[in-house]
Formats: sequence, C-alpha cells, structure tokens
Amino acid sequence: MTKTTTTVPHDLAGWLDANDQRLHDDLFEFLRIPSVSARTEHNKDTARAAAWLHERLQRIGFTTRTMPTKGHPLVLAEWRKAPAGAPTVLVYGHYDVQPPEPLELWTSPAFEPTLRDGNIYARGSVDDKGQLWAHVAALEAHLATRATLPVNVIVLAEGEEEVGSDHLAPFIEKHKAQLACGAVIISDSAMFAPGIPSILSSLRGLAYFQVDVTGPNSDLHSGMYGGAVVNPAAALARIIASFHDADGRVAIAGFYDAVRDFPPAVREGMKSLPFDEGDFKKHLDVAALGGEPGYTTLEKLWTRPTCEVNGLLSGYTGEGAKTVLPGKAMVKVSCRLVPDQDPAVVARAFEAHVKAVAPAGVKVTVTTLHGGHPWRAELAGPLYESASRALAAAFGRKPVITGEGGSIPVVNDFARILGAPVLLIGFGLPGENAHAPDEWISQDNFRRGMRALATLWDELGAHGV
Amino acid sequence: MTKTTTTVPHDLAGWLDANDQRLHDDLFEFLRIPSVSARTEHNKDTARAAAWLHERLQRIGFTTRTMPTKGHPLVLAEWRKAPAGAPTVLVYGHYDVQPPEPLELWTSPAFEPTLRDGNIYARGSVDDKGQLWAHVAALEAHLATRATLPVNVIVLAEGEEEVGSDHLAPFIEKHKAQLACGAVIISDSAMFAPGIPSILSSLRGLAYFQVDVTGPNSDLHSGMYGGAVVNPAAALARIIASFHDADGRVAIAGFYDAVRDFPPAVREGMKSLPFDEGDFKKHLDVAALGGEPGYTTLEKLWTRPTCEVNGLLSGYTGEGAKTVLPGKAMVKVSCRLVPDQDPAVVARAFEAHVKAVAPAGVKVTVTTLHGGHPWRAELAGPLYESASRALAAAFGRKPVITGEGGSIPVVNDFARILGAPVLLIGFGLPGENAHAPDEWISQDNFRRGMRALATLWDELGAHGV
Repeated sequence: MTKTTTTVPHDLAGWLDANDQRLHDDLFEFLRIPSVSARTEHNKDTARAAAWLHERLQRIGFTTRTMPTKGHPLVLAEWRKAPAGAPTVLVYGHYDVQPPEPLELWTSPAFEPTLRDGNIYARGSVDDKGQLWAHVAALEAHLATRATLPVNVIVLAEGEEEVGSDHLAPFIEKHKAQLACGAVIISDSAMFAPGIPSILSSLRGLAYFQVDVTGPNSDLHSGMYGGAVVNPAAALARIIASFHDADGRVAIAGFYDAVRDFPPAVREGMKSLPFDEGDFKKHLDVAALGGEPGYTTLEKLWTRPTCEVNGLLSGYTGEGAKTVLPGKAMVKVSCRLVPDQDPAVVARAFEAHVKAVAPAGVKVTVTTLHGGHPWRAELAGPLYESASRALAAAFGRKPVITGEGGSIPVVNDFARILGAPVLLIGFGLPGENAHAPDEWISQDNFRRGMRALATLWDELGAHGV
Repeated sequence: MTKTTTTVPHDLAGWLDANDQRLHDDLFEFLRIPSVSARTEHNKDTARAAAWLHERLQRIGFTTRTMPTKGHPLVLAEWRKAPAGAPTVLVYGHYDVQPPEPLELWTSPAFEPTLRDGNIYARGSVDDKGQLWAHVAALEAHLATRATLPVNVIVLAEGEEEVGSDHLAPFIEKHKAQLACGAVIISDSAMFAPGIPSILSSLRGLAYFQVDVTGPNSDLHSGMYGGAVVNPAAALARIIASFHDADGRVAIAGFYDAVRDFPPAVREGMKSLPFDEGDFKKHLDVAALGGEPGYTTLEKLWTRPTCEVNGLLSGYTGEGAKTVLPGKAMVKVSCRLVPDQDPAVVARAFEAHVKAVAPAGVKVTVTTLHGGHPWRAELAGPLYESASRALAAAFGRKPVITGEGGSIPVVNDFARILGAPVLLIGFGLPGENAHAPDEWISQDNFRRGMRALATLWDELGAHGV
C-alpha cells in the first residue's frame, strides 16, 4: 500500500469551504428536478436536468454540448487546456434517477431535498446526482482558484443509467476518438462504512427480465372457473419457485457455467473487513439471511450471481376480497452477474428455463429489459495509487478494497471501447436507500468527496494515469 | 321428472309484456348505482342502492324496512295477505356488486347499462341486481294484475354478499321468528346454456385468505442486497407453489379429508350434459385446461374443491425496469369448498401449511378474509317440482340439474337457521363475466326469468312447498 502523506491542497479546501452553501444550494436545485428516466411522463423533467447540468458545466469553463440520442440526451463537457503531455481523464456520471414509488414511504418528499441528521434526503441524492455534482464542484474548485486543471478533463453525463444505458455504448463507440483518454473515473457507488473510504474491486453485471403469463382472455369468476382453468398467477409462482433449488442456489441450467471464482487473496481480504452480520440483520429488521450456501454475506453480495424477483402483479390487489381467477400475471426478475458471465448468454439460459417449466394452458413470454456486463478492477498502477492518496487526504485514513453488488453496466463499455482503466470511487454508504424510499447521501461524505476529487486532479497531474 | 304442461298465466304474461320497457328502465336505474360493497368510498352508493330497492318494494305493495347492520343495511320487505294456510316463501338476493376494475377492459362503462347484441351489459347485471329485479317484477306482476299473491312472501336483500355476508347470518338468527318460512328461493346463479333452464344441485363454499410476507423493513437495491437477503416475493412464490402437487391436486395436509364424493348418479348426469370442452377452451382462448386429475371439467368445476390465486402484488410493477428487492409481498388466495368441508377447518389447515413452508428470514401472516359453507340441494318434493314446471313454462323445455362452482355462502345459513329447503334457480349464462369486465345478462333470460318466477308463485300456491 502506498504511503498516505498527501493532504488536500490549501487553496482548493479554502474555496470549497467558502462556497459550501452555494454548492449545497446548487445540488438541491439539481435534486428537485424529477428526472425519472423510466417514465415517459417525466421526459421533460429529464431533459430539464440535462439542460441544468449543461449550463453549470459551461459556466465553470467547460466547452459543453448536449448530444441527443434516441432516448435521453448525453451531456458532454470538455476542458483541454492542460500542459502539453498531460493525460486526459474522463469523468462519467448520470443525471437520471429511479422512480420514487412507493411515495407514501418517504419521510420527506422524494423531490424536495431535506437535510436531516447530517444526511441529504432526496431521490438521486446518492444515485447519482450528489456524486456527479461533487465532481463538478471539484473541477470548479480548480478552475475558480487556479484558472486551470492539471489534466485534460472530459465530463460525460447520461440520462439513461437507470433504464439500461442503451445509447451510451453506441455513443462511446461513435465518438471514441473524441473521448480517448488515459483513465475513466466514476463515482456512483458506496464506501464500505462511515469514515472508511473505499476503492471498488468489482461490480456485478445485470440481466433484467419481465415474464408475462397469459391464461384466459379475461379475468374470470374464481368459483365458476376455478379448478379447471390453469391459473396464470399460480403458474407464475411455480415458474418463480423453479429459479432456485431448496438450498438457495440458482437452478437455471448453465447459470454458473462462466462464473470465475475470485482469487483466495481477495476472498480473504473481504473476510477481514469489519462486517457485523448481527448489525446487518438488525438494520434490515430480518431474523435470518438467505442466499447461496458456502459464502459469507459479503461474498454473496459482491462475488456471487443472483436471481431476484423485483416485482409481481396479478389479479385483484385492492382492499378486501375479490373472487377472481386472473387472466394474466407478471413478474420482473433480475440476475446480478459476476465475471465472466455474459448477460446475453444468461438471457438465453433464463428464457430456455422459463419455457421449459411453463405449464400447458398458459402463454408465457420473456422480455429482456436490459443487461450489463460484470467487471473487475486493476488494483495497481498510478491511477489506483493517486486515488488512494487523494481519498486518504480527504478522509484521514487509507481506503479499503471492496466489492459492490450493484451494476454500472457501462464500466465494461468504457474499458472495452476506450481501452482505458476505470476507477470507481464512490461516496455513498450502506443503507443509503439508493433505489428505495428515503434515499440519502451523508453530508460529510459529500463534502469530503469534493475534497478527495479536487485532490485527485493534482495527484493525476503529478503522477499520470 | 314431472310433466311440463304448465304455461305462463295469460294475465301475468300480458302485464309483463305491457310493462317491459318500464321494467328495463327501472333495472337500468338500479344498475347505474355503483354499490361496490368492498370499497368504503362507495358506502354512500351502496346505501343509495338499498334506499332505491326499499322504495320500489314499498311502491308495489310490500311493507318494507331498511335494517341497519354494522356494515351495509338489509332491505326486508313483507307481504302477508295470502289465504289462510298458504305457505310463506322467502326470496333472497343482493344489491351490492363486485369492484369494476380493471376499468379499461370494459367495452361500455361498468355503471352505464348498455343493451348490445341482446345482452344487458353492466356491473351487477347478472350478479345480482338483474336477477333480484326479476323477482321484484314477478311479484309486481301478481299484485298489479290480481292485487294479491297466492303465498305470503318475504323479500330479503343484502348489501354484503360480495364481501362475505358477515351480518346476514346473525340477522337471520336474530329475526328467525319473523323470517320463518317454508322455502327460500334464490336467483344468483347461471343456467347451463342458452335455452336450457337449470336447477342447482350444489354450490361450492369458500375460504378466502390474504397472505402477507414481510422481509426487510424497506424496499432495497437489488444489487446492493441481492443474494444475501431473503426475497419476500420469491418466498411468496415458493409458498404459492407448495399449494398444489405436480399433478394439480391441492397439497395442503388434510385439505381433502372431509370431501364427500358425489353419488355416481349425479356424476353420470353431469357427464351426460352437452358440454363441449373444445368450445370451452376456445371461449377462454386457452390451449389446454388444468386442475385435478381424474375428473371431467364439469366435475372439477362443480364437485371438487380448489385453491386459487386471486391476486399478487410485490415490488415494482410499473413501466420499465426497477432494480429493487421488495420489502414485502402479498397474495390473495381462495379455496372453493365442497360438502362436507368446513371453512374454519380449511382455514386452520391453510394457515398451518403456510407457516410450515414459510422460510426463515421473512415474517408471514395469514388473514382469513371470509368463508362460507358448501351446499347440496334436495332434488325432490313440491318446491322442486313447482320450480321445474314454472321454468318449463317460461323456457319451453324441462330444466336440467347442474352444479355451480361459485359460492353463495348464505345458502347454508338459511337452510340451517330457518330449517327450510332452498331452491336455487338462476338466469345467468356461461361467460357472463360476473366478476370480470363486461358483465352481462341475456335480455331474453331476464324476460323469461320474470315469467318463470311469476308462474312459480301460482305453482307454489297450488301445490305448497
């Protein structure tokens, strides 16, 4: 591990201190825009978030363009006035957010950012507007203080991360000359624990499906028809139950074929992290955990693939009793993938499994909603070491190496198309409710994150990538 | 089988002909009241339907009272001026209706009755306002034409049939002296086929449950938590899948213990009914049927118990993909029961089964929403024979004996508390969508039903019950 004697440069720290309120105000303005990319009724809001970000990047000195796609636009901002020979670094983030439902479970409204107990609560606070905004603030700190940056910087922000980033990889491919860079930096993940800065070693990939089971052409009276007609909801339940064996392993043929075990040293490192399973259960209010046998909880979350139900709908779900035999039933299912699983291969295995177990008497369709490749980091070299020093300077302790159960499908795309290493340093925290009601980011992490990122530019300027 | 030389009395037929439009107009007015008993926001509408019916029964010459309950009121109307020694007959029906959802599947609005292709389309048209109104019309035919009825008549209409009739049995118990009668007549069922009048031999009972599975105390990010936390939706699917064995038999321990096989003669009679399984599948648009092996489709529907899913809800069910691990999942399940299954015994077996199969890591609660006993008819005696003659007179052919897969839980209550035989003659038809969008009653059945019921009063007056 590198020595960690770097400190946050005095001028940058001073500027961030002096502008703290304004940077909060700006973030709150960003968070108030309900840029829910999954919902067509929010298309204008999503466009408004892009325009807002465009204007801010332009204002701090970046040459900015909003690039249309067939979906939501990309915001592309460039600053290329670094000294000759300085590397170019690309910062990626996303300005779209998850749907806020169920609304009734939010303590304060999803799109009215609220400071409470040292946390900023809002949809998008941690995923990813707060973290993207920390990057913009760190860049502004340099340009406002020194009128320059030590490296050339490209900021690329998309509006479709929460719906599969369909248009990002084609965009990178098409503009790969312009986006050429020595490293990609992404802050869209969480630290291991409060006060413990973290560098991510891995991300899980994703294969997301919707399965629709259609039975009779109408909802039926469950008395008049029940017992002779195949019930689509019951058929769906049997299909879902077939996804796992009795022990909790995924029972889809071929599912584990491409899974590459993590090296023993990484597994040992993960086992040595201060993780309290009792606290974890207490935090979730569950009496027992589940999942695949033979792995610790952190290994299950970071290194093993899953098949999880995300949503279920059939028949009558309102108040009281309605004696209906539903005409159809729907499940949303997503598999988290680990190296070297391929989402397209998993999709074929999933569809084949569903078709094989579907009973006669119902029609079953499988729709792949989106997918992304899993990823593992290079944990050596100047990029990694600069990040370690910058995090240590801002947080006062060396970062740990963690895994991440979530997916940022584009990480692999950046690495593959641009041929650049990707650095994942995030400032979320466990329990941040990224896709749930009461999403939050720690205000302390937001502030230290801005300092770490501002410091990182100096480190990269001095040591390269 | 009795000889069927009875005809519809000329004066009654003439009156029904002359008043046909007005009787339709009145029914449409009744159907426009959205008396959805399951929804508290419709409480005023349900009360309005009771008041409307009260006023009509009063107007035709019945002494009518609206009797409050802790739920929706009962309408009790009496006419007791028959010749000394004449029997008293009780007519039961219900003025409440099922919820109309999903609204988008109605061709014409649920509460705007519409005549189309010879059918009256509206929520409640066949279940049960149309059939209850046919009774009122038949009684009015007598009183308007002859200023008298051959028997004493009690009309008892409730507003909670679709939510379990919770207050009806206690009401009958409390007022059993006033409700004492020689027979109970109910029209809340369907004929076997168009043109084939039917007398019901059996009804299935009901035990309706909601199962709630609670996991973590919030919806979680499926990437950050997936693979280590027990997924409530997946747990629910496994619970549901355990309700049946691979062959389609209910796999709840003790479920079939009290089931009494139907007599071979009844089974043979059912097998001889003109039932085309190909047409049945085509009507439902399914390629195959399901259910318990070893029984014909009609036997499955009329004589065998079931366990059907009525509704499923968990997690994200909107447009697109949301990578959420749901905090909870819910299923509504109802068992149809046959003699001599007891809903309370089945409820205990169901709850024990669910608790036994529920995995660790989730909390599972079972709520019994309502229940009702199954029933078998006496198919002999003057009540049955009068009904046969009256139906034959109105429909031009002898009735057949059918079963019914649906439940009218109160039938057993009437039989048990009043000690009177119950006659079930209904005028619905297969495919009537009683609990689904586009509910309808055949206009021809509505007209012939009024004639059959008007004729029935003369038969009962002449032959007793």
